[in-house]
Amino acid sequence: MNQAADRAPIVLSDHDLLDRLDPHRSVEAVRQAMRDCARGAIASPARGVVPAGAGTFTFTCGVGPDWYGYRAYDSVSSAPDRDQIVVAADPGTGKVNRIAVGRVLGRARTGSIGAVAIDLLSRPESRTLGLIGTGSQAWWQLWALRAVRPGLRVRVYSRSATGRAEFAARAADLLDIDCEPVDSAMEAVADADIVVLATNSGEPVIETEWIAAGAHVTTLGPKQRGRCEYPESLLRRADLLFTDSVDQLLAYEPEAVAADADPAWLCPLADAPIVRDPSHVSVFLSVGLSATEVALLHAL
Amino acid sequence: MNQAADRAPIVLSDHDLLDRLDPHRSVEAVRQAMRDCARGAIASPARGVVPAGAGTFTFTCGVGPDWYGYRAYDSVSSAPDRDQIVVAADPGTGKVNRIAVGRVLGRARTGSIGAVAIDLLSRPESRTLGLIGTGSQAWWQLWALRAVRPGLRVRVYSRSATGRAEFAARAADLLDIDCEPVDSAMEAVADADIVVLATNSGEPVIETEWIAAGAHVTTLGPKQRGRCEYPESLLRRADLLFTDSVDQLLAYEPEAVAADADPAWLCPLADAPIVRDPSHVSVFLSVGLSATEVALLHAL
Repeated sequence: MNQAADRAPIVLSDHDLLDRLDPHRSVEAVRQAMRDCARGAIASPARGVVPAGAGTFTFTCGVGPDWYGYRAYDSVSSAPDRDQIVVAADPGTGKVNRIAVGRVLGRARTGSIGAVAIDLLSRPESRTLGLIGTGSQAWWQLWALRAVRPGLRVRVYSRSATGRAEFAARAADLLDIDCEPVDSAMEAVADADIVVLATNSGEPVIETEWIAAGAHVTTLGPKQRGRCEYPESLLRRADLLFTDSVDQLLAYEPEAVAADADPAWLCPLADAPIVRDPSHVSVFLSVGLSATEVALLHAL
Repeated sequence: MNQAADRAPIVLSDHDLLDRLDPHRSVEAVRQAMRDCARGAIASPARGVVPAGAGTFTFTCGVGPDWYGYRAYDSVSSAPDRDQIVVAADPGTGKVNRIAVGRVLGRARTGSIGAVAIDLLSRPESRTLGLIGTGSQAWWQLWALRAVRPGLRVRVYSRSATGRAEFAARAADLLDIDCEPVDSAMEAVADADIVVLATNSGEPVIETEWIAAGAHVTTLGPKQRGRCEYPESLLRRADLLFTDSVDQLLAYEPEAVAADADPAWLCPLADAPIVRDPSHVSVFLSVGLSATEVALLHAL
């Protein structure tokens, strides 16, 4: 009972993760985890939320075939770059193998889910991407997207002219992506093959009429009643409507814009081949499927 | 958004903790945390439990004046020595400072709570301790007790004659405690000034009649309806009945033996001076006050 265990887990900082993460491997690990969740081989339970002090702790857990663990994040601290933690352990021994501390793993995971969605839902011949938002979610979507749609031309818009110019320059420099800052959301989105909304806006940042026939739209930002980055009419325009976790989406409080969609129509994004008419509009509601962050840490 | 953070948290293994932990500092850190919880200066919310796969993840959170964090443990793995994790972060920066991985921190914490209870509740002139159980909870009670009642003579009983002999020899060797294995629970407990029950038994391991006038009893093991290491009559024998968290005790499912006690009589163990008649019997129901493990990690 009193014996020392000197085997230590590997602890990965954001710095370590930026060295190790590769978009191809990351997207494939997340794709496999999404398939395994869909066929019930990975448990992805509802988030646990513990109110404490002025904020909350949130725990998203997962149990896979040869790993288990959780991601923890909080609103107890109001520091904007506060750490998150992802823990991966071995179910046979109960030993923690890996711990990621920082923000990068969760973001790479969300970017990779976005890339899987775009790979499955957008037309293979897509050439242009209209991006609204220049924060970390926007960045990590582009980071991962290179694994599935290399060579896309990106038009990016955000409210700050300086911010979008800097984002475009950085995307060209660090991600080798042809990224052009534009002066309006409409200019970014109109005629784009793929549209990605990655804002914190509680009001629609686009108009549904701007979405071209045949386009795919991903929304990463607010998607709840009273606080939603897209107009409700976007969902009526959609011919295909997917999310990574129907359960998580329907558990939103206040409820999701889409909560009253036909469940047979609001589909979990999994491994089933998706047949789309070239003129159809698809929409992907990204919520961040629990367990995928642990699967990604395990796969690193 | 894409910048590396290379400041890494301190990660403490069980080996590291065995080197660092000192019973005096540990007991004083936990004592201060219990006081702070009692006066509302530390938030100690109800445990969060997330069912996943064949087991559960449990998260016990805490928010103190200059630290916050949680302990995570699970029954997803059935490995008996599976790791637990305690995380301590800084609310100002949101950065994780320390992570303990293993079993030692939680055990030292529970031992320290037990030592605080014995310090506050047992007669100062106590000389003998009857201990039932030779597992890790029993060990860590003795480990911490040296900080508040040095020189106690211990009589230990468990069902395995070999097990109790080895435990006694180890306590003498590693903790410098006069510890004698005895052949029955009655022999351990009868006339003892302090009694500690630290078993996994679902049936009573003592009889209430064995408890001497003036004794203090701590129970660490099962204490629920249908699965309880002490007889219900022990609570009727008690003149003073304390726990470290009334909320946690009353949240047990199935309910605690003691759930129907008068709330004014079932007292949270805090900083108020306790006046006891020398002939009174006191009982401490140890449940493991949330937040104390994070406070202890912060104080190391």
